[in-house]
Amino acid sequence: MERQIDVEIRELKDLILAMGCCVEKSIEEATQALILREPDRFKKVYELEKTINEHHILVDEACVRILARQSPLAADLRWIVATIKINTDLERMGDQAVNISHNGERYLTEPALKPLIDLPRMASEVRQMVRSCLDAFVRKDLALAEQVLQQDDVVDQLKNEILDELKAFMARDPQSISRALNLILIARNLERLGDHATNIAEDVIYALTGKDIRHGHS
Amino acid sequence: MERQIDVEIRELKDLILAMGCCVEKSIEEATQALILREPDRFKKVYELEKTINEHHILVDEACVRILARQSPLAADLRWIVATIKINTDLERMGDQAVNISHNGERYLTEPALKPLIDLPRMASEVRQMVRSCLDAFVRKDLALAEQVLQQDDVVDQLKNEILDELKAFMARDPQSISRALNLILIARNLERLGDHATNIAEDVIYALTGKDIRHGHS
Repeated sequence: MERQIDVEIRELKDLILAMGCCVEKSIEEATQALILREPDRFKKVYELEKTINEHHILVDEACVRILARQSPLAADLRWIVATIKINTDLERMGDQAVNISHNGERYLTEPALKPLIDLPRMASEVRQMVRSCLDAFVRKDLALAEQVLQQDDVVDQLKNEILDELKAFMARDPQSISRALNLILIARNLERLGDHATNIAEDVIYALTGKDIRHGHS
Repeated sequence: MERQIDVEIRELKDLILAMGCCVEKSIEEATQALILREPDRFKKVYELEKTINEHHILVDEACVRILARQSPLAADLRWIVATIKINTDLERMGDQAVNISHNGERYLTEPALKPLIDLPRMASEVRQMVRSCLDAFVRKDLALAEQVLQQDDVVDQLKNEILDELKAFMARDPQSISRALNLILIARNLERLGDHATNIAEDVIYALTGKDIRHGHS
């Protein structure tokens, strides 16, 4: 027979998954709006943020309720503690999609600064990381969580290259400063999304193994 | 007689306070290094980060231990859940001090771009917010926590003004682009420090009242 705590943890997992879907959709809309120059898509990001914020509160409430009623231990307790943290990261990923949208809206008021450099590739890498950390969480897939940690290095490298190229752009053509700066800020937003996905992967590893691998600790 | 859980919560509070002191010191060193042009101070930031990271892990371990052994309820449970989140924010504040240091080190390799605009004032406001949210946590001071939320608006406003001024600077003098960009990134780092202090204030309010005021929810 299924334990009551298993039922509640399953419901909590569904809630996090629904929230994760909104976050993925939100990042997709924000980055595609920018790449395809379709500013209407930014509106969807602002709508999705509301749903993400509602889930943020619901997930925390559910975690506290399970802790109070079920006094979970060992793997169950680790899972709840990891979920509290994953919830925070997902909410802040929603904020970053909103930041991309604000910077993107400003960027799209002016003619395209071509090329978009490697931003589309960076966006694609980050979206892959977000998908993988959520999949690792759902499938309890340790290897996939560890893979996310590697991908973060690629994203950081791309960000550095993009920053250098955009700085050179600004120096060559002062007319491009405002647009290049918006793209720099967007690259930073994407980098932070990658950091949040990394945090989630670390939390999944902790939930599955009990090992805290942050800061090179084990 | 003091309950065992009170002893453990007191020890946990001391740990968070020690961590908070390192974070405050770290922000002080990073911002003063920049303002006084004393790059040696950045080294202290990197040393402090190690201590902050160690505390990050210790605090999480202590929270899980209390949850497992004491099955806390009501206000005690809220306090532990809030501490798990505050711990995350403190650690990321340490990261932001490191980011300020990296951007600051690059900035100080070139002659000063005067003026530093309102960056020293923004740094001072942010440090005040950090001090207040930690004080609110220690003294269980609801009014002080609420005050932190107001201060964040001032910091955001300052950041916008600083960004506008630096953009104008870059447009007037392409030689200033690299330095101005570093200062823009530092202003963003400071803004994020303010956001983390706001998160902590919200967690203190939740721990004290049981009210989740995030996202305009109550």
